Amino acid sequence: MNRIEIKEVYQQAQSLDGQRIVVAGWVRTVRDVKNFGFLELNDGTCFKSLQVVFEQNTIDNYDLVAKLNTGSSVMVEGTVCFTPNNKQSVELKATKVTILNATDETYPIQKKRSSIEFLREIAYLRPRTNLFNAVFRVRSVASFAIHKYFQDHGYLYVHTPLITTTDCEGSDQMFKITTLNFDHLPYTKDGHVDLSKDLFGKQAFITGSGQLHGEAFALAFSKIYTFGPTFRTEKSNTKTHANEFWMIEPEIAFCDLDGLMDIEEDMLKYVVQYVLDHCPEEIAFCNQFVQHGLKEKLETLVKSDFVRIDHKDVIEILKKADVKWEFQPTEGGDIAKEHEKYITEYFHGPVFIQNWPKDIKAYYMKLNPDGKTVAAVDLVVPGSGELMGGSQREEDYQKILSRCQEMNVDVKAIDWYLNLRRFGSCVHSGFGMGFERLVMYLTGIENIRDSIPFPRTPSNCQY
Amino acid sequence: MNRIEIKEVYQQAQSLDGQRIVVAGWVRTVRDVKNFGFLELNDGTCFKSLQVVFEQNTIDNYDLVAKLNTGSSVMVEGTVCFTPNNKQSVELKATKVTILNATDETYPIQKKRSSIEFLREIAYLRPRTNLFNAVFRVRSVASFAIHKYFQDHGYLYVHTPLITTTDCEGSDQMFKITTLNFDHLPYTKDGHVDLSKDLFGKQAFITGSGQLHGEAFALAFSKIYTFGPTFRTEKSNTKTHANEFWMIEPEIAFCDLDGLMDIEEDMLKYVVQYVLDHCPEEIAFCNQFVQHGLKEKLETLVKSDFVRIDHKDVIEILKKADVKWEFQPTEGGDIAKEHEKYITEYFHGPVFIQNWPKDIKAYYMKLNPDGKTVAAVDLVVPGSGELMGGSQREEDYQKILSRCQEMNVDVKAIDWYLNLRRFGSCVHSGFGMGFERLVMYLTGIENIRDSIPFPRTPSNCQY
Repeated sequence: MNRIEIKEVYQQAQSLDGQRIVVAGWVRTVRDVKNFGFLELNDGTCFKSLQVVFEQNTIDNYDLVAKLNTGSSVMVEGTVCFTPNNKQSVELKATKVTILNATDETYPIQKKRSSIEFLREIAYLRPRTNLFNAVFRVRSVASFAIHKYFQDHGYLYVHTPLITTTDCEGSDQMFKITTLNFDHLPYTKDGHVDLSKDLFGKQAFITGSGQLHGEAFALAFSKIYTFGPTFRTEKSNTKTHANEFWMIEPEIAFCDLDGLMDIEEDMLKYVVQYVLDHCPEEIAFCNQFVQHGLKEKLETLVKSDFVRIDHKDVIEILKKADVKWEFQPTEGGDIAKEHEKYITEYFHGPVFIQNWPKDIKAYYMKLNPDGKTVAAVDLVVPGSGELMGGSQREEDYQKILSRCQEMNVDVKAIDWYLNLRRFGSCVHSGFGMGFERLVMYLTGIENIRDSIPFPRTPSNCQY
Repeated sequence: MNRIEIKEVYQQAQSLDGQRIVVAGWVRTVRDVKNFGFLELNDGTCFKSLQVVFEQNTIDNYDLVAKLNTGSSVMVEGTVCFTPNNKQSVELKATKVTILNATDETYPIQKKRSSIEFLREIAYLRPRTNLFNAVFRVRSVASFAIHKYFQDHGYLYVHTPLITTTDCEGSDQMFKITTLNFDHLPYTKDGHVDLSKDLFGKQAFITGSGQLHGEAFALAFSKIYTFGPTFRTEKSNTKTHANEFWMIEPEIAFCDLDGLMDIEEDMLKYVVQYVLDHCPEEIAFCNQFVQHGLKEKLETLVKSDFVRIDHKDVIEILKKADVKWEFQPTEGGDIAKEHEKYITEYFHGPVFIQNWPKDIKAYYMKLNPDGKTVAAVDLVVPGSGELMGGSQREEDYQKILSRCQEMNVDVKAIDWYLNLRRFGSCVHSGFGMGFERLVMYLTGIENIRDSIPFPRTPSNCQY
């Protein structure tokens, strides 16, 4: 008899009623009620487990099954029993339970609920819990929703390089890579490590952004997006920083800042709605156990109109606010987390903060006619703060050169990027979205370490 | 007036007939026929360019437009002229041509066809050519087809870590990463570089495979796949090796080697058919200019039944063949490129070669009852050789331990991975597909450097 998935058992419960089937999976709990027992079986194909009923009279290894530990793998043959209008609408009456691999008392996850911090220590087993089953399903579905949105809208998916010698984030934030043997490093005559002996013949890094390469492709395909891993060497042990994270970076030719905000808003609403539609049980679980009000938060987002406001007007509102700030809002200054929180509460929804002081933003952002601000935009959302950051790019060759000089950017290292402004340049814009931020927003999870399968943070690179 | 995409012009040509529209893009060619001219405009939203007709009497900058160089960016306002039953079925009669950015004679791509080797040197501009427009569109569409196949079939997409301290390919093949300053390296008392001072407190690498981490997730979700970048330090300057490439690694619980081959075959046919359906112009172009017979090759694959044959039987066939081999086929030995070629021609189609000698395969592959072979399988396809490699994994704790000892694998470094065999182990299988190999197969492109946007090979890490 062929095994079927627990997801299929639920989907076809009515037609399977009375049928004999085989399922396999991992034991969540076993309850022995003398002569018969209940076994919760989960195979990860859907959020829900399947209740298996086993009886002393029916199976020949009752005592072994009744003593099974959480995490054991079993295969169960049995008859489907469907009860309409019953909370536990389907169960499987076992005729045979084959124990594939029984865990012993050293199995780290036991019946009682484990703390999220403890589960973080066993990253290779935590997907077997309800919480991480939900979070990683949402992560997978949201990934696909992003691909589907951009592909349906005619964007080209570009695999920008991970190994790079040019990067828009600056090399002091980047991991160096090497094939040299640390115990036998080659040296140049003047006493430096001789990087010409390395595989690429020079210092290479792993990237912090695909934007520069993405722009090159946008100036050929009009609309492109990247979706891949990025890296930062930041030594921050906070809830929102990881050294490895995934980013989505769309880039659109013939598109200005207003057009960019239209895309950001449309895309985010699509992805949120897609997750609501495709992960109802996972969202319900997170709503109950992770963040109360999560579902309403997401449903509200989809229906809301995002506010668009200039940075300077945000500062005005913050200054007028009757709040004792930790960081005083200033006209030329950044927007702190506490400010983001205030401003999303002030507007009861997501806010695009646009036209930022040029001195706190990157060289590639388009200088506005005022000469003081750049056409940059951050999207801040209730509960999570900044979710996306983007800008119209400076498309004028001379202007971007001057900005590079002003900001001490090494123009030689990015000459090809600057050349894009000489070879068919045009108005173009793009944004970046940290994918873990989105997963945290979608699930209510508060620590980035719980939004990514095997998190990498300072001093922490296990598994 | 809002700009519309050239793709939309073609899709809605009939209803747009006689309408005024605005398009924007990059000039491919300009032909000046005195008093009027033709301009081929491409915006990358579809493979085809749009023919713009401009007349001296109609636009006010005729002379400038007539002299435009390839690569210049323009915006064109004009009237759509649709002619049914005409090869050039739609053209745009310009009423206004705005020159956004005119290239000069330093623009590297000129009207005449450039060699593929030359274009490789200008990776940031080559997507503006027909060839790379086609290849990178196919790459994007094939990526989505892979996601769609696995998501539609209930697989979980897992972002396995790029930074890792454990890897199934062995650390001698891996790039080391570091945040240490090469000019001021810290040393331990006994004279080694002090890696405890590095960001993760030990030596970390960028990964060559997500398999080990993927298995952990398969033993929670039953069916998972990865799709991400992987790295090898190989110093091979061949047409098929790159130091950075993308891989797809599905892993399936409760699935044996036969089940795995079913999935590989089904997935590959789906992806090929999807590309045929969604990239007809790109495939037609590659069929004409890259590989004659490409389209037929792909259509044949979708309809064929893949052969399944044991490694030892392949060796028999090779030995009997009337061919002077460069590498003599032997029973315990590997299958060389020339052998792969022969065997796919022998069977006129794709061939699964299964049950390989254990000594030339990895420790994690399931030992067959004969004690000599492992349940591994390579898929070889006509014209491209090996496209996928997979195996049933050894699920028995003691057996995998013995194999590790036999093959000198450091069991301490992968204790968590081995523990999966103690904590709810089950039959499971997985495979890896190098994505560039697939792109090369789909487009007929012969050099891996032309299948990836910014290739990284030894001594070559530009852009």
